[in-house]
Amino acid sequence: MDVIYVKILKFMLIFIPISIVGKFLNFSPSIMFILAALSIIPLAGLMGEGTEEISFYTGPKIGGFLNATFGNATELIISFFALKEGLFEVVKSSIAGSIIGNILLVLGGSMLIGGLKHKNQKFNRNIVEVTSSMLLFAVIGLSIPAIFTHTLSSNLLNTKYEGFSLVVAIVMFVLYILSLVFSFFTHKELYAVNYEEDGKAKWSLKKAIIILIVSTVLIAIESEFLVSGVEDITAKLGLSEFFVGIILIPIIGNAAEHSTAITMAIKNKMDVAIEIAIGSSLQIILFVAPILIFLSLLFTPMTIIFNQFELVALIVSVLIANKVANDGESNWLEGAQLVAVYLIIAAGFFIL
Amino acid sequence: MDVIYVKILKFMLIFIPISIVGKFLNFSPSIMFILAALSIIPLAGLMGEGTEEISFYTGPKIGGFLNATFGNATELIISFFALKEGLFEVVKSSIAGSIIGNILLVLGGSMLIGGLKHKNQKFNRNIVEVTSSMLLFAVIGLSIPAIFTHTLSSNLLNTKYEGFSLVVAIVMFVLYILSLVFSFFTHKELYAVNYEEDGKAKWSLKKAIIILIVSTVLIAIESEFLVSGVEDITAKLGLSEFFVGIILIPIIGNAAEHSTAITMAIKNKMDVAIEIAIGSSLQIILFVAPILIFLSLLFTPMTIIFNQFELVALIVSVLIANKVANDGESNWLEGAQLVAVYLIIAAGFFIL
Amino acid sequence: MDVIYVKILKFMLIFIPISIVGKFLNFSPSIMFILAALSIIPLAGLMGEGTEEISFYTGPKIGGFLNATFGNATELIISFFALKEGLFEVVKSSIAGSIIGNILLVLGGSMLIGGLKHKNQKFNRNIVEVTSSMLLFAVIGLSIPAIFTHTLSSNLLNTKYEGFSLVVAIVMFVLYILSLVFSFFTHKELYAVNYEEDGKAKWSLKKAIIILIVSTVLIAIESEFLVSGVEDITAKLGLSEFFVGIILIPIIGNAAEHSTAITMAIKNKMDVAIEIAIGSSLQIILFVAPILIFLSLLFTPMTIIFNQFELVALIVSVLIANKVANDGESNWLEGAQLVAVYLIIAAGFFIL
Repeated sequence: MDVIYVKILKFMLIFIPISIVGKFLNFSPSIMFILAALSIIPLAGLMGEGTEEISFYTGPKIGGFLNATFGNATELIISFFALKEGLFEVVKSSIAGSIIGNILLVLGGSMLIGGLKHKNQKFNRNIVEVTSSMLLFAVIGLSIPAIFTHTLSSNLLNTKYEGFSLVVAIVMFVLYILSLVFSFFTHKELYAVNYEEDGKAKWSLKKAIIILIVSTVLIAIESEFLVSGVEDITAKLGLSEFFVGIILIPIIGNAAEHSTAITMAIKNKMDVAIEIAIGSSLQIILFVAPILIFLSLLFTPMTIIFNQFELVALIVSVLIANKVANDGESNWLEGAQLVAVYLIIAAGFFIL
Repeated sequence: MDVIYVKILKFMLIFIPISIVGKFLNFSPSIMFILAALSIIPLAGLMGEGTEEISFYTGPKIGGFLNATFGNATELIISFFALKEGLFEVVKSSIAGSIIGNILLVLGGSMLIGGLKHKNQKFNRNIVEVTSSMLLFAVIGLSIPAIFTHTLSSNLLNTKYEGFSLVVAIVMFVLYILSLVFSFFTHKELYAVNYEEDGKAKWSLKKAIIILIVSTVLIAIESEFLVSGVEDITAKLGLSEFFVGIILIPIIGNAAEHSTAITMAIKNKMDVAIEIAIGSSLQIILFVAPILIFLSLLFTPMTIIFNQFELVALIVSVLIANKVANDGESNWLEGAQLVAVYLIIAAGFFIL
Repeated sequence: MDVIYVKILKFMLIFIPISIVGKFLNFSPSIMFILAALSIIPLAGLMGEGTEEISFYTGPKIGGFLNATFGNATELIISFFALKEGLFEVVKSSIAGSIIGNILLVLGGSMLIGGLKHKNQKFNRNIVEVTSSMLLFAVIGLSIPAIFTHTLSSNLLNTKYEGFSLVVAIVMFVLYILSLVFSFFTHKELYAVNYEEDGKAKWSLKKAIIILIVSTVLIAIESEFLVSGVEDITAKLGLSEFFVGIILIPIIGNAAEHSTAITMAIKNKMDVAIEIAIGSSLQIILFVAPILIFLSLLFTPMTIIFNQFELVALIVSVLIANKVANDGESNWLEGAQLVAVYLIIAAGFFIL
């Protein structure tokens, strides 16, 4: 399956020139949105591959750091352009949507497909516990501004919320730095297993760096196409910006990662699959969200006030991630249940 | 204690003829409600006994399936008649009430009474983990329509909610089928312990089938008496339909099961007691609730929008069930705490 | 560190005569608030020391009971005077604030500082599980009146809530008695480790009793100064009574306990540090809160309806406490995260 998937991904690179030609031929923004989405999926995969190749040359420590930083680069770039366009609702809902998607769809899908091949898949509880604990605390921290807003009277000035969101962003970013210190210095042996590499480099260092740079630039171009098409496509298909943010963008931005997690689950490396899903969620909270709030200061300051549904979705995902982590093993039914919860949520957004 | 309880239960069958005579003598609906309640308790016990006897002849696999299906038959029948009468509030609150009752009162009572005899009662964490995980995911799925309703603006059409409730019901029912595949085919060895039978059949197969059929028919008749009396008794005693649904009906429908769980706890078979409480809750969500939504299409489509209190109660029960499962052992104080939470909830409904 | 801390604490006793002189010289209520706060911190430490000394003479059973009862005496006394003044909001928010402070600041601080010295700090999961389970159930019970209020329509009479709060207080107090029976009679061996004493008495029994009585009387006097200054200081500094209750009073009342927990963590006795933080939270719910409701009947009956933010904070703290307990080990990053959540909450109250 892995090989076929890689071939499809490579084939999808054809959408990059098509989208660029389309731009010059003035294709409608909705068509551009679709072409950009189809281009970003293989580009994100390529960027991931490039980072991995570089890590063969840098050694596991710097490699781990690069993986951690570039892991959510696609979402960061898309969100940056959405931010520039003032699509705050899209940015915020894509943060929440990435976490829901990672926990319910990626993790659920991995457990379901992996569990069809392997009866009970065990994983190292200790490693997963640390990440899922961090996720719980991070989500709670991130949710506090929203909880304040929804529980206190709303006649407070918005500027105060912007200041508060900034404080939260700073605290989260400090925690991000601390978590790097934790995983690369004080407790690095805990994570040793994740960064061990089976094979060796396929590409030269130079080639890997060029591919990384080119794919980053192309993702930036395609993200601009994508974001420019949001308004048009939501109007035409009768979708809400919220739906685009919470369902579509996370699927586009994480597609490459999703396939890796499922491949790992099929190989019975459930530890890695879970780390991808939970670790990626954690990074979105501690790294992507603060960076976006900092960047928003260049345009219009963005608050990090999730709506009540996003709040519930975040908390539900965290509870599920912690429950799953606690188990120490998974099976196909558990996976099916996570996917079922995701389907109900997506159906809700589609129907309502 | 077991023997005395069985004798009392047998003795209570006397209320069946009394209620039927009462019907012809035009007893007030309130009296009929009470007589029907007193009749259903032993009938539900008889139905359970019949199912168990049949399972001696069919072998554990089909027996397990019969137990799973008939386990909540009483609640299903009562709810069916409530549905026919359009008492949606009673139906919905009895779904939530059954889950609260099973987790707080049945499980708490088992731990309290069992714990008075046995200092620390251990149980197999692995089995309980699977069921309590399923319960967590199922409750989350079932709660999503309500969370949507309470968090999104309410100017959406109700018809949409009916469509959405139907989607949820279908997903839940598919999960129910999948969970049967899981427990009877792919992972049947996990459940082996629950369906092992100590003794042998007391009744002939024919007798067991007749008793099962007769008790089902009688429960249907008494349920109609019960439901017809709801409006009258709530008016006379100043109770709300909500109180009837969330406290009274679950106690009536589950009385027989409750006694089994407590008996098991006294015998230090805590695994079985927990499985009854949590497993029964799970079945209500995955089997009873979807069936009721499907049946409601015959009359007026019912939505599965719990009110906020029911939501909280569901989530609280699930958290407690998961906490208890995680422990791996129980004692009387833990049981007392669960019962205390139930008493506070019941007092709240009574006072307010 | 311990020794330096003790010296600072002893030195702070100087604020007692200053505050008394200040009273006669008619210092402003704000100054009196600050002086009283600075006096109560060492007095609470002295009271704790006195109780500990007495327990050398009474043996571990009565000693444990005394520790349990006097552990939150300072908060009880402060709250009593706040109650007398009708500052219900302060009383309620200080109950919630003590629990948040104990879990996030005391436990987080212990894990952070202890974790800087010891890489991974292990603790006995079984003991912590019992306390954290109890905390979960107790918080759920205590939150039910508030959940009722926020979810049901608010046109119900307040007098009903007072009755309901009283029922909750009675149930909680019964659970408190039961938990004493549990820890001192039926399951006393579970707690044996906590009450073992390394050293021997420094003081004579007579001296210890006198110090206990004197410090209790002085705390009462200073609490009256403190409470009388609340209105003035909140007006002058632009703080809300809510901020005083949820942040300041818990820090003042628990300062001595906080230092003990951190000292224990540095000594790698993480079990004791966790027991102090979680056990103290539990006592506030089962002992302090009911007593305050009973006492309020002497003045104006107080309801125990937390606002939505307090509710969320309570539930968050309990989830975190349970997560931490479940881990079985801690490290500095986990501690840093708890402190980060506390800082975000405190920043929120300060900014908004």
